[in-house]
Amino acid sequence: MKNIAFALICLIGIAEGYSQQVNTADSLMIRKIYDTSLLNGKSYDWLDHLSNEIGGRLSGSLEAELAVKYTESELKKLGLDKVWLQPVMVPKWTRGVKEYAYIETAPGITSTTDICALGGSVPTPAGGLKAYVVEVQNFEELAELGRENIEGKIVFYNRPMQANLINTFQAYGGCVSQRYAGAMEAAKYGAVGVVVRSMNLRKDDLPHTGAMSYGDTPPNLRIPACAISTNGADYLSNALKLMPNLKFYFRQTCKTFPDVQSYNVIGEITGSTYPDRYMIVGGHLDSWDLGDGSHDDGAGCVQSMEVLRLFKEVGYRPKHSIRVVLFMNEENGLRGGRKYAEEARLKNEKHVFALESDAGGFTPRGFSFDTDEANFAQIESWKSLFEPYLIHSFLRGGSGADIGPLKDGTVVLAGLRPDSQRYFDHHHAENDTFDAVNKRELEIGGATMASLVYLMDKYGTKTELGEIKN
Amino acid sequence: MKNIAFALICLIGIAEGYSQQVNTADSLMIRKIYDTSLLNGKSYDWLDHLSNEIGGRLSGSLEAELAVKYTESELKKLGLDKVWLQPVMVPKWTRGVKEYAYIETAPGITSTTDICALGGSVPTPAGGLKAYVVEVQNFEELAELGRENIEGKIVFYNRPMQANLINTFQAYGGCVSQRYAGAMEAAKYGAVGVVVRSMNLRKDDLPHTGAMSYGDTPPNLRIPACAISTNGADYLSNALKLMPNLKFYFRQTCKTFPDVQSYNVIGEITGSTYPDRYMIVGGHLDSWDLGDGSHDDGAGCVQSMEVLRLFKEVGYRPKHSIRVVLFMNEENGLRGGRKYAEEARLKNEKHVFALESDAGGFTPRGFSFDTDEANFAQIESWKSLFEPYLIHSFLRGGSGADIGPLKDGTVVLAGLRPDSQRYFDHHHAENDTFDAVNKRELEIGGATMASLVYLMDKYGTKTELGEIKN
Repeated sequence: MKNIAFALICLIGIAEGYSQQVNTADSLMIRKIYDTSLLNGKSYDWLDHLSNEIGGRLSGSLEAELAVKYTESELKKLGLDKVWLQPVMVPKWTRGVKEYAYIETAPGITSTTDICALGGSVPTPAGGLKAYVVEVQNFEELAELGRENIEGKIVFYNRPMQANLINTFQAYGGCVSQRYAGAMEAAKYGAVGVVVRSMNLRKDDLPHTGAMSYGDTPPNLRIPACAISTNGADYLSNALKLMPNLKFYFRQTCKTFPDVQSYNVIGEITGSTYPDRYMIVGGHLDSWDLGDGSHDDGAGCVQSMEVLRLFKEVGYRPKHSIRVVLFMNEENGLRGGRKYAEEARLKNEKHVFALESDAGGFTPRGFSFDTDEANFAQIESWKSLFEPYLIHSFLRGGSGADIGPLKDGTVVLAGLRPDSQRYFDHHHAENDTFDAVNKRELEIGGATMASLVYLMDKYGTKTELGEIKN
Repeated sequence: MKNIAFALICLIGIAEGYSQQVNTADSLMIRKIYDTSLLNGKSYDWLDHLSNEIGGRLSGSLEAELAVKYTESELKKLGLDKVWLQPVMVPKWTRGVKEYAYIETAPGITSTTDICALGGSVPTPAGGLKAYVVEVQNFEELAELGRENIEGKIVFYNRPMQANLINTFQAYGGCVSQRYAGAMEAAKYGAVGVVVRSMNLRKDDLPHTGAMSYGDTPPNLRIPACAISTNGADYLSNALKLMPNLKFYFRQTCKTFPDVQSYNVIGEITGSTYPDRYMIVGGHLDSWDLGDGSHDDGAGCVQSMEVLRLFKEVGYRPKHSIRVVLFMNEENGLRGGRKYAEEARLKNEKHVFALESDAGGFTPRGFSFDTDEANFAQIESWKSLFEPYLIHSFLRGGSGADIGPLKDGTVVLAGLRPDSQRYFDHHHAENDTFDAVNKRELEIGGATMASLVYLMDKYGTKTELGEIKN
């Protein structure tokens, strides 16, 4: 019974803190935020333009620069206190002409299959690359096979996403090493190329691109890497069981250019009470090039813009300075996120809260937080305010890639967590398009973010209030 | 402090009851149910057949009969203890040739618009119907306008779904009277036809059908009723503002035939301990005819079939007799639901629990329950078992139309509650199709239903256990 008594005392403590903080004014303000977002939202129109008028926004591309100009100009229409561009040098990698691949089961007997170059890959030789294939599930198998079984061959990484994980990001986390490090690992054993099963829980014909790295592999030892669709991977795997001596051919003309100038796009409402304390909300403006980047991360960008617009619309004047930051180059470099944090430190800008939306524009379920227990307890005390909107999941865990560089032990970091079931059907593939985003789901996400920023602004973080000494 | 102390005593009570009931075995069984559904599910294949091989299954149609035969035959493959068809007479209404409509702003100047007949409507005259239009939001406006403003005209009901309601079913509830009773109400004032804004939160060109009734309007006074797409409704409304004397023309050839024979499809695993106490899980096998009825309610049918299949797969032998019931004719008559309840009473079959899935195949969020406080408290004590699967919403409220007739004060009724944001984009329209259903979302729904039935079966309802005297 002792433990129960202790738990009850804790509950009383929580209940008291809660009653201090959550009141009818908050409920009404949050209702107003959701109503405005759903009845008079702007995010869907912005996304329509980004997706359908501009399209995929790979770092260094014309589309990325058009997106910078468009979002800057839209932010300027909102009557914010400041809107500016923060220069950042970004990598420039281009896909070249559409990739081509086939499986050759006997000389002259081929079937084409759907691939795309992984982001950052070197090209194949101009005439393409054809070799025997060795299929593996992971790097351990690669090591067991050793150079004698791998040299001169194409390594085919075929570890599928684990379908019984409810959180599909966890399933992604269990596979993504094949894509990111597959080429550099295979090159160690003399492989000539790499084919990676797409990170997709669905069976379809769409290859999914994404970042890869050669680490410190010398340039002359770098091998081309491509993704194959899940249907293509299953076909190739089955074919290999019947005909281990089949060959795989692929051709890609991708290329890396010197870094180019780009920008983070930033807008600010200056705080009424703490103008020198910053809370930021953001997404990344760059995307992969296959689709139009509607879910990843056009949605996060327009939701973040909407947070500031909603504050204006509902007449909420924040105490802290609230910034929207549209980061450049999350996908293949994270240069924008690093630059923002670097400059904040140089200027001694005190950041107290950062929220990122980079998990798709689907129905929001909650947030994950990278913070300490005291801050998390305060946030949890607000849970009931979100219940009418079916926002229920408040967890400690990751936040967002772009805001990660701000981490310093005092800033509270958070990520919006939408329903994840459909996300990897579209992620980094040509079907990450506007029609896959539902207007209401997008708008509820923006309102959910605005409501959290409102509460953080009104009550301050626990760290900021000096209730915890770091 | 007294109230807090009382609340704490209640909490202890709940905590103790909880520890009695929820244990590791339950967690493991539920994990196994979800794993099996996601790794080795059958519901998506069944839905593929129902949707793509059979199609829309309007009561009395060939497709409905094919669906009866198909699901009966699939249930027979599952090794259940019994599978049978329960005869039920159903209405037969046919749409006829594709409807046609236009707005005539001046003689010879017309623009076509997208409509469909409402289910149960009479046809227009063979040459169509053309008349002036009077737009209203509700029946009160109709009464205010009176016969002098309505006689000889077409009444256009244009009350939109309320976009700021998070629960879209609530928004639907606020509009559906226009569709169901619009014709009978307008006929009282001498209207010659009715056009109803589609129950759709999206702006698009798809008309959404659905049931309507003439009540006790004499046959010679029944007027034809159609739905117009949301884009069409906005266009018509705007045009009326500019040109109040425009005319609307529509033609539909729908027809009501005498009732025909159809069936509920039923499968049963006979209970090991209480073979004469029944728990049922179901959806409705009929659908509207415009799409293929994948969300409404193919999804609910295959999820219900999957519940029994999952019990077989995971090796759970239920104590109660568990039935899957695929009800016929939910959409335009509810004959199947009524028949099932009627026969259960005649045979004195004691039903203790009924669960319906009829709100789409989207990511499940929880359940709503039509039951008393004691039963609801027991169910709530299981909430933590569902947390790993992000099932969080347990509410008291409605359950499902087909199981409603079973209500007798003792049976616990429940409805699966999936995410509702996209549901009315597809509801009763030609885009309620297989491609709009996500395999994982469907499978998580089936597993969620199976987990609840498992717990209800294992622990029994409170009513059943005699802990409440009715």
